Amino acid sequence: MFTAQTQLRVRYGETDQMGVVYHGNYALYFEIARTEALRQIDVTYRSLEENGIMMPVVNLTVNYKKPAKYDDLLTIKSIFKVMPTVKTIVEYEVYNEADELLCTGQTTLVFVDMKTNKVTRCPQKLIDIFTPFFEDRS
Amino acid sequence: MFTAQTQLRVRYGETDQMGVVYHGNYALYFEIARTEALRQIDVTYRSLEENGIMMPVVNLTVNYKKPAKYDDLLTIKSIFKVMPTVKTIVEYEVYNEADELLCTGQTTLVFVDMKTNKVTRCPQKLIDIFTPFFEDRS
Amino acid sequence: MFTAQTQLRVRYGETDQMGVVYHGNYALYFEIARTEALRQIDVTYRSLEENGIMMPVVNLTVNYKKPAKYDDLLTIKSIFKVMPTVKTIVEYEVYNEADELLCTGQTTLVFVDMKTNKVTRCPQKLIDIFTPFFEDRS
Amino acid sequence: MFTAQTQLRVRYGETDQMGVVYHGNYALYFEIARTEALRQIDVTYRSLEENGIMMPVVNLTVNYKKPAKYDDLLTIKSIFKVMPTVKTIVEYEVYNEADELLCTGQTTLVFVDMKTNKVTRCPQKLIDIFTPFFEDRS
Repeated sequence: MFTAQTQLRVRYGETDQMGVVYHGNYALYFEIARTEALRQIDVTYRSLEENGIMMPVVNLTVNYKKPAKYDDLLTIKSIFKVMPTVKTIVEYEVYNEADELLCTGQTTLVFVDMKTNKVTRCPQKLIDIFTPFFEDRS
Repeated sequence: MFTAQTQLRVRYGETDQMGVVYHGNYALYFEIARTEALRQIDVTYRSLEENGIMMPVVNLTVNYKKPAKYDDLLTIKSIFKVMPTVKTIVEYEVYNEADELLCTGQTTLVFVDMKTNKVTRCPQKLIDIFTPFFEDRS
Repeated sequence: MFTAQTQLRVRYGETDQMGVVYHGNYALYFEIARTEALRQIDVTYRSLEENGIMMPVVNLTVNYKKPAKYDDLLTIKSIFKVMPTVKTIVEYEVYNEADELLCTGQTTLVFVDMKTNKVTRCPQKLIDIFTPFFEDRS
Repeated sequence: MFTAQTQLRVRYGETDQMGVVYHGNYALYFEIARTEALRQIDVTYRSLEENGIMMPVVNLTVNYKKPAKYDDLLTIKSIFKVMPTVKTIVEYEVYNEADELLCTGQTTLVFVDMKTNKVTRCPQKLIDIFTPFFEDRS
């Protein structure tokens, strides 16, 4: 399993007239969380695209428990429970500064070869980086 | 069952550098679809809030099948399969002009009394409007 | 002079916790207004890009007078006062249903050849379409 | 004069199909820049609103020079050249990691009493904090 945490601060423009973060913005928060998770193991999504691999989201689920508010400093935990194959599943947990769980979610992303526009396997370089996190510890 | 259709055109600012609609924007598209569905039966979400009822989204699911592109005129079908209670579930289907199914999704919204900030039952006025769509046709 | 009007309805996700449209969203509203203005004379921005011309915004000005609110049906007037050259200037006026002027603004866009990434002249096809609106009426 | 710098990383959802940051997003970037500038002198915009003062933007100007790209780490300089009165003017300069000036801009914000919804003077607490930056150095 690979987990990572990132923090972000709620922007004014991300709130709506309920006085809380607009629910649609969590897709963006999850994007930031998984991007920063990968950066922590020296993978940038930018370099993936520069190498001809893009990772569109094919499924998104969000469960809203408590609202996030303007200027809240959120902590988002990204959890990769299974080794990437042609797809990768990431789970998310969003916490506020009082350590309350505000939201959970999950995205499934697939690896797509930008030349052929077809689904492809996770690049070997990424496999090599992920493998130590998924080795049997028994 | 109550179903309704609405159309919207993809804005430039809603695309991302993959050249398609940013996946996070479908939450906004679904919001428009259900708002316009309700407007077709003379219910405005604005009037609900003015009467002290808000409807936060507690769950969102999106399944992405094909990308929507800039300037596409999308048709979004909203499907209310069950009578609202303290919550309402809406399903969505997004089609492009070639009638291809691009995306499906679902949201669960709860009725919240804005004074007490507690979950409440669907307002009677709304029940009365919805009832004819859910009557036994046997 | 070429002027055109388009309407759009304020989305929930476009409001912020002040209970009004987030000020940053007017750039998006102006984009819609000029796109629809062009569509009214049978020009689509999509087709311009498909023909290798893009039109990045190089200057944006917005003057906020009164707030737009959720679910407001806005009317946006786009005004092209001068013939496009290598650039085009569009002015905007945003009105609500009570015909109050909420906001004015202006954008300057340049024509860019997508192959060379250099500024280029307004395509002849567009010149031909615009010319009748700017002919001397004296 | 009071100046401050803040950094932010371009999100995928902030790009458009030109492959660069959507021009409308700079309003959001400026909002972050001035908020973080104020935080550096121990003023949070959140606390202003909690004390009944909001600061709507009444004018926004943006000059786009070069595009910002996905994953760019931007540095935004906020410049307060004059003491706040009933309004405050903030200028912005956006730089990328190569220290190229991508964009400049300006916002004018007014202080509004949230109870009366009228323009009001800059709160004394803020005046006290700002004063040392604007004292005559002659």
